Amino acid sequence: MKISIIGVGLIGGSMALKLREKGIADFVYGIDQNQQHIKEALDLKIIDAEADLHQGIKNSDLIIMAIPVDAARKLLPDVLNLVSDQQTVMDAGSTKAGIVSAVKDHPKRSRFVAFHPMWGTENSGPKSAISESFSGKAGVICNKEESSEDALNTVEKIVAALDMHQIYMNAEDHDIHTAYISHISHITSYALANTVLEKEREEETIFQLASSGFSSTVRLAKSHPEMWVPIFKQNKENVLDVLNEHITQLRKFKSALEKENYEYLEELITNANRIRGILR
Amino acid sequence: MKISIIGVGLIGGSMALKLREKGIADFVYGIDQNQQHIKEALDLKIIDAEADLHQGIKNSDLIIMAIPVDAARKLLPDVLNLVSDQQTVMDAGSTKAGIVSAVKDHPKRSRFVAFHPMWGTENSGPKSAISESFSGKAGVICNKEESSEDALNTVEKIVAALDMHQIYMNAEDHDIHTAYISHISHITSYALANTVLEKEREEETIFQLASSGFSSTVRLAKSHPEMWVPIFKQNKENVLDVLNEHITQLRKFKSALEKENYEYLEELITNANRIRGILR
Repeated sequence: MKISIIGVGLIGGSMALKLREKGIADFVYGIDQNQQHIKEALDLKIIDAEADLHQGIKNSDLIIMAIPVDAARKLLPDVLNLVSDQQTVMDAGSTKAGIVSAVKDHPKRSRFVAFHPMWGTENSGPKSAISESFSGKAGVICNKEESSEDALNTVEKIVAALDMHQIYMNAEDHDIHTAYISHISHITSYALANTVLEKEREEETIFQLASSGFSSTVRLAKSHPEMWVPIFKQNKENVLDVLNEHITQLRKFKSALEKENYEYLEELITNANRIRGILR
Repeated sequence: MKISIIGVGLIGGSMALKLREKGIADFVYGIDQNQQHIKEALDLKIIDAEADLHQGIKNSDLIIMAIPVDAARKLLPDVLNLVSDQQTVMDAGSTKAGIVSAVKDHPKRSRFVAFHPMWGTENSGPKSAISESFSGKAGVICNKEESSEDALNTVEKIVAALDMHQIYMNAEDHDIHTAYISHISHITSYALANTVLEKEREEETIFQLASSGFSSTVRLAKSHPEMWVPIFKQNKENVLDVLNEHITQLRKFKSALEKENYEYLEELITNANRIRGILR
């Protein structure tokens, strides 16, 4: 199958690598405004050729959009305008309600499959792409009843080739769950980085003392605003809801410490330990 | 050299494995109230023999205490009562002001070297011990002027054998820095786990959707209260100070979202991204 990747970065690049490895992609077009990314993607054999939007779409069976969620929501109607009933379009964004509502009444809506691979790193660009990224992670397909059966089948084949386990969800539920499970982790990590940068003015000390625990909790704070501001914007209500709960939970730790109530502190920690039974 | 490990768990076990590998430890005694841990440590060849406190100390050149910080502070005077001027005692606790003040006027104070290896995982017990754990991490020695030169030399040799880079600090400064760099990460992670467990009642969904980002920020929430309650208790003032700052930082994200001030949100994230320049 011929595939166009719109946005040849971490996610688009990783998908291309894996789909090529699995023999699913015969030819990959890269569509990206960033010429440096196109050059790197060509060098790394992530894509076979650069294309503009019209040319790429015209020649592809499948179009994968892997750009920030605001850009995807804006571009998707134009992409759908260009596709025939034999072509499939999928996205890879971390919010889903916005994009499905943007094309709800589009005459080609059924050619689109709303998709979210539950994987990412703090890095970006084709140089960070890894073919094994998605293995064992969840691949969420939203509002599948709004897609044609053949388009859905194509995307299910892609998700299987990425070695992901498929989950079906409606877009609103997806955005609620990802607020808890992904988006709040990023805010926590950003706020933690800002806390340390505020309190610890000697950067050399941070660097020297940083333990594995600190590095892992603060890792996500390296993620770029170009990707994350649009996600928080599109999922504002859900993220605020979880953020309020998170501040409430932190205040419990504060209160336990202030009152020197160490039985309560132990209780809070023991409750948190339940996550061990849920995540290996 | 003959070594006694008091507390044959993750830290004590990992140190024993590495010191044996490096040919520093000829014989390792394990001292632990947990008979299961003793058995596992014998099976895994982490220790050569079990010993009680008197017997182990009597036969060792070096005594390493790797037990929770409250237990260590309580036990250290008794251990020092048993050592001669040819023996050295070191600890491995995550708080330092409490333990050094507990033995400030002890006649054998100079035989003790206060130590903190900046490494740990959410796991515990000898089965989790890994010999390469400490490589490249910071090994902090506190209040070195209160230790005898030969005791300090012994511990410096141990830290070098663990492939750690040595840092010297006074105990009060150490506790301030670790509040920022290690202790707050754990509170954040516990509170994040509690947030998710509170908001997401369907555990199956957490498990299915959990991305690599979520797993890494919530990893520390698996850490046991037996170790962490005493740390937070001993470092209460510093931890509260950083926790207040952290809540302030989270409120900035909340305010940016509530006011839909996305320029400010981007500014907060861009500031957090500075951590990229500090931590590889």
